[in-house]
Amino acid sequence: MNRFDITILGCGSALPTTLHNPSSQLVNMNEKLFMIDCGEGTQLQMRKFKSRIGKLHSIFISHLHGDHIFGLPGLLSTLSLLGRTGDLTIYGHQDLQKFIDLLINYFGQHFPFRINLHPLDPYNHQVIMENKSMRVHSFPLNHRIATCGFLFEEKEGQRHIIRERIDFYQIPLHNLSSIKAGEDFVTADGTVIANRSLTYPAAPPRKYAYCSDTAYFPEIIPYIENADVLYHEATFAETELARAKQTFHSTAREAAEIARAANVKKLVIGHFSSRYNELDQLLKEAMVVFPDTELANEGKVIEL
Amino acid sequence: MNRFDITILGCGSALPTTLHNPSSQLVNMNEKLFMIDCGEGTQLQMRKFKSRIGKLHSIFISHLHGDHIFGLPGLLSTLSLLGRTGDLTIYGHQDLQKFIDLLINYFGQHFPFRINLHPLDPYNHQVIMENKSMRVHSFPLNHRIATCGFLFEEKEGQRHIIRERIDFYQIPLHNLSSIKAGEDFVTADGTVIANRSLTYPAAPPRKYAYCSDTAYFPEIIPYIENADVLYHEATFAETELARAKQTFHSTAREAAEIARAANVKKLVIGHFSSRYNELDQLLKEAMVVFPDTELANEGKVIEL
Repeated sequence: MNRFDITILGCGSALPTTLHNPSSQLVNMNEKLFMIDCGEGTQLQMRKFKSRIGKLHSIFISHLHGDHIFGLPGLLSTLSLLGRTGDLTIYGHQDLQKFIDLLINYFGQHFPFRINLHPLDPYNHQVIMENKSMRVHSFPLNHRIATCGFLFEEKEGQRHIIRERIDFYQIPLHNLSSIKAGEDFVTADGTVIANRSLTYPAAPPRKYAYCSDTAYFPEIIPYIENADVLYHEATFAETELARAKQTFHSTAREAAEIARAANVKKLVIGHFSSRYNELDQLLKEAMVVFPDTELANEGKVIEL
Repeated sequence: MNRFDITILGCGSALPTTLHNPSSQLVNMNEKLFMIDCGEGTQLQMRKFKSRIGKLHSIFISHLHGDHIFGLPGLLSTLSLLGRTGDLTIYGHQDLQKFIDLLINYFGQHFPFRINLHPLDPYNHQVIMENKSMRVHSFPLNHRIATCGFLFEEKEGQRHIIRERIDFYQIPLHNLSSIKAGEDFVTADGTVIANRSLTYPAAPPRKYAYCSDTAYFPEIIPYIENADVLYHEATFAETELARAKQTFHSTAREAAEIARAANVKKLVIGHFSSRYNELDQLLKEAMVVFPDTELANEGKVIEL
């Protein structure tokens, strides 16, 4: 099975603390790294957790609040100093272009790679990236400014060959790719060998959903349904419900309500307010509603 | 004696490492904090070392390379979130205004304080800040782009009253301020009591010089002469002398040559290249020329 895991680089909120860095995480799908959000200090966290910066494929920015983007200038400069030449695509709100332009005006003459901004539509679901093995969706969240959630999903893999059957029927090598793709095999005498007797199915495609920052917003459920892992913000405990509503953030319980309604396998909560030194209360409040909940933490790796 | 010390927040160079953060330090003069440079992660370092962000008086930016300014957006946003209302002056190259404008355009409607950029003249010595007890000078360094060094200097303090003499001559309280300022006292019968028999001198004013980034540049010596502490960049060891020249940085030996020629009391070297895991060699090379040398390190406090 291809590698598919998430490394949390930062799961704090706007005010960083000694416990939590601002938002950033790395999605590793088959040894390509996809970064989601890039708060201040993200490149330092990558060093700390020995993330392979050379494998950075692209960057997905949920929204243009400082705690999700202020690490971009340093990260891009470092990529430049390290001699990256391959284009870098950043998926984010169109206004991010101003931020990138300023950087390029300061440093651009030395940038050995091109930065392409792929502007997101913050009001509609879209497939924003696709290759032969995976696709990435964006969909609207409900925050103070235009904000997107992301879904990283594997495509259905090829079926696995049952070697002994292939040998038994003496099937030539050049037929294997069509058999992996699901076709039956027809022998020289016209006998049809059903594909299901030559192969077993690929592992079911896995899905990772990222929803931060957002108020409680059940409209996202169709996009994240049945995800293997849902990362959902849980800035506040239930005592701060009024504050959560006012600032368009979620409580831990609300995150868990979404996880349960969307029938995900695992919930990871993050984007913790700096007011909490201990997160037990948030975890407890979420687990009452959705037992398969974990707290995010810097350096934590979540395997799908 | 008033408090006067330096806290190193970052003493790495352009590529941050797990050992060193990019440039930033805090000068505490009489419980006011003056920040010099503000690389990425500076606000996180302030949290780590429990620096009192509420005491931040002003910020001095040596030059507009990313490793000296990419912490500004996060720091300014945090000051905003914490409710700062007092004006904040940033001393730096005039082009810094573009960077500040972009921030204000993104977030400015919520900024509860005003940011004043005091543009520096990178080609001439200037006194850029002055109050009743101290002054700050800027002077040209020699780097790839316009860069300023800074000198923080106390003004001569008031003379200290010798209490027994004041009592002996029955000098009224309202005369004390002129006596502290150095005046003689004339008794009712016209006798002149020399000031030196009523007071002893204030401690000699202390001076702190910051020179980073710069090539070896003896032209700075008149500005930093006799400083109590000189922080001078020492990006490279002597084996990388050619690279130092090419990039307008200094070797540790060159930093020490400047310290010796300027007759400073103590040299602190920093802005270390990410290629060095061990800094013993740099320290050794500097100490051959100038024995009172120390390595900077994150969290180190240097008292003057």
